[in-house]
Amino acid sequence: MLFHVRMDVHLPADMPAAIGDEIKAREKAYSQELQRSGKWRHIWRIVGEYANYSIFDVASNAELHDILTALPLFPYMKIEVTPLCRHPSSIRESDE
Amino acid sequence: MLFHVRMDVHLPADMPAAIGDEIKAREKAYSQELQRSGKWRHIWRIVGEYANYSIFDVASNAELHDILTALPLFPYMKIEVTPLCRHPSSIRESDE
Amino acid sequence: MLFHVRMDVHLPADMPAAIGDEIKAREKAYSQELQRSGKWRHIWRIVGEYANYSIFDVASNAELHDILTALPLFPYMKIEVTPLCRHPSSIRESDE
Amino acid sequence: MLFHVRMDVHLPADMPAAIGDEIKAREKAYSQELQRSGKWRHIWRIVGEYANYSIFDVASNAELHDILTALPLFPYMKIEVTPLCRHPSSIRESDE
Amino acid sequence: MLFHVRMDVHLPADMPAAIGDEIKAREKAYSQELQRSGKWRHIWRIVGEYANYSIFDVASNAELHDILTALPLFPYMKIEVTPLCRHPSSIRESDE
Amino acid sequence: MLFHVRMDVHLPADMPAAIGDEIKAREKAYSQELQRSGKWRHIWRIVGEYANYSIFDVASNAELHDILTALPLFPYMKIEVTPLCRHPSSIRESDE
Amino acid sequence: MLFHVRMDVHLPADMPAAIGDEIKAREKAYSQELQRSGKWRHIWRIVGEYANYSIFDVASNAELHDILTALPLFPYMKIEVTPLCRHPSSIRESDE
Amino acid sequence: MLFHVRMDVHLPADMPAAIGDEIKAREKAYSQELQRSGKWRHIWRIVGEYANYSIFDVASNAELHDILTALPLFPYMKIEVTPLCRHPSSIRESDE
Amino acid sequence: MLFHVRMDVHLPADMPAAIGDEIKAREKAYSQELQRSGKWRHIWRIVGEYANYSIFDVASNAELHDILTALPLFPYMKIEVTPLCRHPSSIRESDE
Amino acid sequence: MLFHVRMDVHLPADMPAAIGDEIKAREKAYSQELQRSGKWRHIWRIVGEYANYSIFDVASNAELHDILTALPLFPYMKIEVTPLCRHPSSIRESDE
Repeated sequence: MLFHVRMDVHLPADMPAAIGDEIKAREKAYSQELQRSGKWRHIWRIVGEYANYSIFDVASNAELHDILTALPLFPYMKIEVTPLCRHPSSIRESDE
Repeated sequence: MLFHVRMDVHLPADMPAAIGDEIKAREKAYSQELQRSGKWRHIWRIVGEYANYSIFDVASNAELHDILTALPLFPYMKIEVTPLCRHPSSIRESDE
Repeated sequence: MLFHVRMDVHLPADMPAAIGDEIKAREKAYSQELQRSGKWRHIWRIVGEYANYSIFDVASNAELHDILTALPLFPYMKIEVTPLCRHPSSIRESDE
Repeated sequence: MLFHVRMDVHLPADMPAAIGDEIKAREKAYSQELQRSGKWRHIWRIVGEYANYSIFDVASNAELHDILTALPLFPYMKIEVTPLCRHPSSIRESDE
Repeated sequence: MLFHVRMDVHLPADMPAAIGDEIKAREKAYSQELQRSGKWRHIWRIVGEYANYSIFDVASNAELHDILTALPLFPYMKIEVTPLCRHPSSIRESDE
Repeated sequence: MLFHVRMDVHLPADMPAAIGDEIKAREKAYSQELQRSGKWRHIWRIVGEYANYSIFDVASNAELHDILTALPLFPYMKIEVTPLCRHPSSIRESDE
Repeated sequence: MLFHVRMDVHLPADMPAAIGDEIKAREKAYSQELQRSGKWRHIWRIVGEYANYSIFDVASNAELHDILTALPLFPYMKIEVTPLCRHPSSIRESDE
Repeated sequence: MLFHVRMDVHLPADMPAAIGDEIKAREKAYSQELQRSGKWRHIWRIVGEYANYSIFDVASNAELHDILTALPLFPYMKIEVTPLCRHPSSIRESDE
Repeated sequence: MLFHVRMDVHLPADMPAAIGDEIKAREKAYSQELQRSGKWRHIWRIVGEYANYSIFDVASNAELHDILTALPLFPYMKIEVTPLCRHPSSIRESDE
Repeated sequence: MLFHVRMDVHLPADMPAAIGDEIKAREKAYSQELQRSGKWRHIWRIVGEYANYSIFDVASNAELHDILTALPLFPYMKIEVTPLCRHPSSIRESDE
């Protein structure tokens, strides 16, 4: 089941660089593990912004919530979730 | 080069059903041709709305504009384009 | 799987009363059938508005989309869907 | 009498974890006591957000205000209240 | 129980004056009857707009909904309802 | 001359409780004095929010500005003023 | 007593030119009469828009409402009124 | 050449009163000098807000920008500029 | 003197194609004449929208207003004007 | 390929002047280098705001993202990117 997610990151201006780097490293590892598992299908950077559009493929709303709230950057993110379904014009089997 | 596009469709309430059906049939054929060519990478329906999120892979801004304005439903659409680029955490070669 | 849905209805000012009544009668029958099936868990009127908040319990995003777009009033509605999940403080088994 | 309430929580980034945990523990106990009393009918987590949609069943506006402003997390919440009433299509006796 | 209501009226540009006048006459009679009953406590015109702020005193959300949807101008109104309660600084016994 | 005023209060999270209490006590005394004088006609709490809707009866715009900017909580308020006048349907002599 | 008013005009696309011209001629005459009386202190065109910013000097809210609703273009206008008062830095006696 | 300017002031809550007073004194002197020169034509306080509407008469966009960014309160202001021109109904020679 | 202008075009759905084409032809001729004169410095299409961003170089606000309101498409446009000036980092002599 | 970019700068109120000056000096040098290379085609100050409108000419979305995120002021900016293409009425060869 697919979901469209927009994430905007706002790190506090006074966060020490070392702490920011450590959180971002954990975020990257966590994201890549979910991508390898197939649950985090796509992630694209939005040009000029510290933000991304992502597509998740999960079994339930609850699974998506657990994944998102476990993001190391979650406390610094504004997240907006939109449920998706197959478009009748789509020719791509995996887009559902 | 990837672009995120949201399309919202608003057909006039007094459009005869036959005309609406004919436009939608042309829209579907046009969309599927572009999907087969690889330019329209993804299209998903937004649940509960006459709207979609799509990902386009085109050579230039101009090519995207030509594709979008040639949509049979273009006169009835509100379109919002966001340029994308590769996310540093992405593990998917094709997501750029 | 639960979803929160807000529906706002805008009937055209020039729709004949007989047509409006017929659509609303079909809407009511359709809604009640879905309520009896357990898929449309709750529906509440928003005070002073031709709008409702509803809770749906469906197996997938696709099922919800099919239900909503089959609403007799769908062409006259603005719909906004929000995915829900169990709240850690909830004591109600059915609220998930 | 039913009310739809949306609560968004924003804890200060520099709140010590121990203080945050203590407030959340009190919030949970308070919420569950109100759920058991029947006044806080439903609470659902909004997927991907530190926010909830809730349904309250109270005797008056004043009772709802007293309940909400006594929430341990109230100083950190943005709250939006919408009065509800029975929908003419509802088949559920308790949804009024 | 008090509610704050904002009503904005938008009559169709092509409504014949005689029909508009007849609806407004019924609206006025209906409003004054409710004012005399004590249920429609206050009504003020917003300067420069075809809109009003009103205060209603009703026994329940349902009663308010029935009153508002029976307004002769209801099909042409945008209505926004806000529940009120006694302010701790108020010295006016009737403001609750 | 009547004015509708909405006031939203936002106290800094790190304001010591004693200072907050002292400001609120002065605010209450000031508000009640103005209510007794007839200038602050009504004040209602908005359910679930640290905010109020008020009605002022003053001789001029300048008098209203002086009253509002002298509120002890003024530095922590967002204030929105709307000029009112008698509604043609009003039956209440004092509502003008 | 001064008020800042923004007026945006939206004439229906199908209004015959002769009717539009007649309304505009009456609007101009009415506006100039009020300017000569001193009640309509200033009127400026907003560059690129069919809209104006105006300053009115009237004895009361009610007088302003009567003036605005008597504008020949009133049924086609969106109007927003903001009450003004003397600025403590102003050196201009008439700006109050 | 005339411009309409709205300025909203937001001083930091923790700015020492002496510093705030010094900035405001310089702001007042600077504003009055520009008023005397004829460049700052009007300034009005917006009732209930720490904000003003002003009219500037300058030779160019660049001159206006230089004037505004030299305001002692500029770092604490949100400023919105709208270019104006003579309204065809205006009878006031100086309003252009 | 430079101005940034955004124009959004909304042609009525029922405008005959021949009339639309005639207006657009006049719009193009008018735009190109102004571009040749140097007053309309730049015009770019916004990808996916019937809209443009333009840069005008005119002697005054009034000249810009006259140019914009004489656009053949003006009655069907939403226009937003922003005054510009030289950026201190600009190395381009003509960008002022 | 052209892009329209709006940048709004918000420096923290407590940033020492020396640090701010150093960042702005690097920003200016970086911007001018990109202007000389032809990638940053135009930059204009928005009158009365710490903001600019810019036009970039880059080979890809990715190149634009790299340029923008390397801005010394990037951590303090809100950036909004809009893809552009040649307008059919443009007579300027370089505007594509």
